Amino acid sequence: MTKNLPEPLKGFVAIVGEANALTAAHDIAPYLIESRGLYHGSSPLVLKPGSTEEVSAILTLASATGTPVVPAGGRTGHVGGQVPRDGGADVVLSLERMNRIREIDPVADVIVADGGCILADIQKAAADNGRLFPLSLGSEGSCRIGGNLSTNAGGTAVLAYGNMRQLCLGLEVVLPTGEIWNGLRRLKKDNSGYDLRDLFIGAEGTLGVITGAVLKMVPQPRGRQVAFAGVRSPEVALALFERASMLCGTALTGFELMPRIGIDFTTRHITGVRDPLSSPHAWYALIDISTSDSAESAEAMIHRLLEEAAEIGLVEDAAIASSLAQQDAFWRLRESMSEAQKPEGGSIKHDVSVPVSSVPRFLADADKAVLALMPDARICAFGHLGDGNIHYNISQPVGADKAAFIARWREVNAVVHAVVHTHGGSISAEHGVGQLKRDELIASRPAIETELMNRIKQAFDPAGIMNPGKMVRPK
Amino acid sequence: MTKNLPEPLKGFVAIVGEANALTAAHDIAPYLIESRGLYHGSSPLVLKPGSTEEVSAILTLASATGTPVVPAGGRTGHVGGQVPRDGGADVVLSLERMNRIREIDPVADVIVADGGCILADIQKAAADNGRLFPLSLGSEGSCRIGGNLSTNAGGTAVLAYGNMRQLCLGLEVVLPTGEIWNGLRRLKKDNSGYDLRDLFIGAEGTLGVITGAVLKMVPQPRGRQVAFAGVRSPEVALALFERASMLCGTALTGFELMPRIGIDFTTRHITGVRDPLSSPHAWYALIDISTSDSAESAEAMIHRLLEEAAEIGLVEDAAIASSLAQQDAFWRLRESMSEAQKPEGGSIKHDVSVPVSSVPRFLADADKAVLALMPDARICAFGHLGDGNIHYNISQPVGADKAAFIARWREVNAVVHAVVHTHGGSISAEHGVGQLKRDELIASRPAIETELMNRIKQAFDPAGIMNPGKMVRPK
Repeated sequence: MTKNLPEPLKGFVAIVGEANALTAAHDIAPYLIESRGLYHGSSPLVLKPGSTEEVSAILTLASATGTPVVPAGGRTGHVGGQVPRDGGADVVLSLERMNRIREIDPVADVIVADGGCILADIQKAAADNGRLFPLSLGSEGSCRIGGNLSTNAGGTAVLAYGNMRQLCLGLEVVLPTGEIWNGLRRLKKDNSGYDLRDLFIGAEGTLGVITGAVLKMVPQPRGRQVAFAGVRSPEVALALFERASMLCGTALTGFELMPRIGIDFTTRHITGVRDPLSSPHAWYALIDISTSDSAESAEAMIHRLLEEAAEIGLVEDAAIASSLAQQDAFWRLRESMSEAQKPEGGSIKHDVSVPVSSVPRFLADADKAVLALMPDARICAFGHLGDGNIHYNISQPVGADKAAFIARWREVNAVVHAVVHTHGGSISAEHGVGQLKRDELIASRPAIETELMNRIKQAFDPAGIMNPGKMVRPK
Repeated sequence: MTKNLPEPLKGFVAIVGEANALTAAHDIAPYLIESRGLYHGSSPLVLKPGSTEEVSAILTLASATGTPVVPAGGRTGHVGGQVPRDGGADVVLSLERMNRIREIDPVADVIVADGGCILADIQKAAADNGRLFPLSLGSEGSCRIGGNLSTNAGGTAVLAYGNMRQLCLGLEVVLPTGEIWNGLRRLKKDNSGYDLRDLFIGAEGTLGVITGAVLKMVPQPRGRQVAFAGVRSPEVALALFERASMLCGTALTGFELMPRIGIDFTTRHITGVRDPLSSPHAWYALIDISTSDSAESAEAMIHRLLEEAAEIGLVEDAAIASSLAQQDAFWRLRESMSEAQKPEGGSIKHDVSVPVSSVPRFLADADKAVLALMPDARICAFGHLGDGNIHYNISQPVGADKAAFIARWREVNAVVHAVVHTHGGSISAEHGVGQLKRDELIASRPAIETELMNRIKQAFDPAGIMNPGKMVRPK
């Protein structure tokens, strides 16, 4: 199998054993693509180490031989961070065999897990211990925690629980040099040096491989209520969000904004999805409240919020989910919105953030700019209003040529991102940088910022072997 | 005035102007000491720049001439981070003139402030705009936000609002090279590169000077309740904390643990402090609840908590503050505990954290170890139980010689910190590293961790001029 490998690569195979090294093209193929087909890479070898020590041995050899290594988790990322470079000989290092939950400590409320643990398995382990691990994403059945950490994943419950950064107490990382950093701490407070943990989180595997993590569990909510409300405009949705924040504090777990066209798409294309309200509204808010003290308090909150909001005219109509199944159905509407765009043809996407208070003005300005460029474009902008994070997606005009539309990706990006910059926003809110946004980010950020990142990269990865071509400028 | 300065230092004076450069020994003296008298430094020159550009010019010159620079804010730190080295010629760079609030944006809920703003001024600006800036510390009337950021300050409301790291959205930093990084963002979500912000926060001025910051405001609570409860033991206090967390969620703003001896000290020495309960208890919990929705919900929570806790025997007796003045009085008891130790003689202090669930066992183990060493030591361990952060202070035996007691500081530290390590804790929970703990931290942490920090330091401060001798090993 590995006989035909170039000599230097044989050393890698020896570390993990032949059974855990893929060299045949059809075995390697799944590691070279990205779900939307934006990226195709090449690689001679996929390694599946079984331990932190094996990862260390691989990176030691890679640094010594100057072999580029691309870490891979569940490979669900949207920006090509997990895809090897095209035409190169990057070795893929998959964490998929390192999928153990190492320890569950319900007293300290932590889970210690391998970097390759699937997110849903961690959620389940927490639930089995009467706790909640609150990170929740569309891809939770296949994404892996090392990838969630490396991208500082967000998802649907950031309002109440924060991003991955807030859900992680400690890390174990194998550095590009092969050195192992054991930072598996369980402390809420620890001011004892530079914040290495937060440097590795969100670094997209360019500073090392996250092989283990201490994750925070939280109490399972006793009460949960989900409501779906029709509102007149994003301005009104923002006012509703502010009222909900004030009333619910961090019991407000999710606050999502959706446009009518998104409801049209999902009800048309996604099996089982239906509009919870009897007549159409221009915009919708999905409100998720979870309370730790009792079921009654969530119920009281959602009723009070909707009553007050109706009184002052913030809500045109609203439905409260009456069962777990209906709660799931409301969320499915929101979570399938991206998928529902596919049958409508090509879609040009943006994952942007602006200050929360600027979301309505951002939407107005971006719509104006996009429609000036493409008068028939169908803008389907939805997302986490409470975080200022909008998935500003644009479906092709009805009947347009898909390829011709997609060919304008960068052109449309430029227009939308220019609006983001005028609102002091980020063009990479939660999906990360990867291959998709590296050059644009470098072009738009202050030079000293890129320079500092390159200095950090150089300090951690002097041989330049870790996930090259991602996050920072190649030397 | 500055005529007698060595030639290279005259260049620094020219940048800020003679009026803003201190060279006389009696003017400089206050910048060379630390409040507890643990550190005395030396310096030929204190500079008080008035702008970010002046800070930049100072650091550019410092890097070019190899002049060490020590940034100073309110100089209230407890670990000597702000004190120049003894016997050296470090120049002090004081941010005291850069004390402007640059902007208040009540819609985006942020304050943009100079690094030299006094914390109380920021709190007041937020209050004047109907908001809360939640960082709260004993020294808030004189500490400055750049110092709060550089030490990742914690304080009394971390449970609900987090450390300084969670209260800051963006930074402006002058790098040791004089370059200015403008990272004054206002975004809740931004995954667009390495987390530079969190690297500067907590770096104790060794990676650059924080000259500006975007700070988060939060809604002012509508309800607030403070209770003072007598409990049997730290184990019971922990159980009470867990119940309070479950019931109140993040409305639980503070949960402090205090020992009886602390009540004895404060009632004996602090004017106006009295024991809120009629008979003594072994331990006390101070519980602070603040609610964003209404005054009634805080009231309902505190009553329900104390009733349930009394029913299952968690609380022996409790008092709920019946006025704002009484709330302040309860807190004053806790906040003056350290001060109240002074009239009792020498005090050897520790600022440690362990996993929250380990606090009772840590206290038992540490007490045993300390009393084995000094059978008559008076242990006054109090602090933020909900964060696992204990100020493990030890007052000298009655009638002992103060100097002889204080001379055993390192010896006692070693014993207590050994117990901290067996519980997976940190010997520097919130006060930071400074001069006090640098060598001990380096000795106790994995070598690769210090090595990584040194690599970062080298990458950011190649000339090695920023706050030398702090945080990381000098070259």
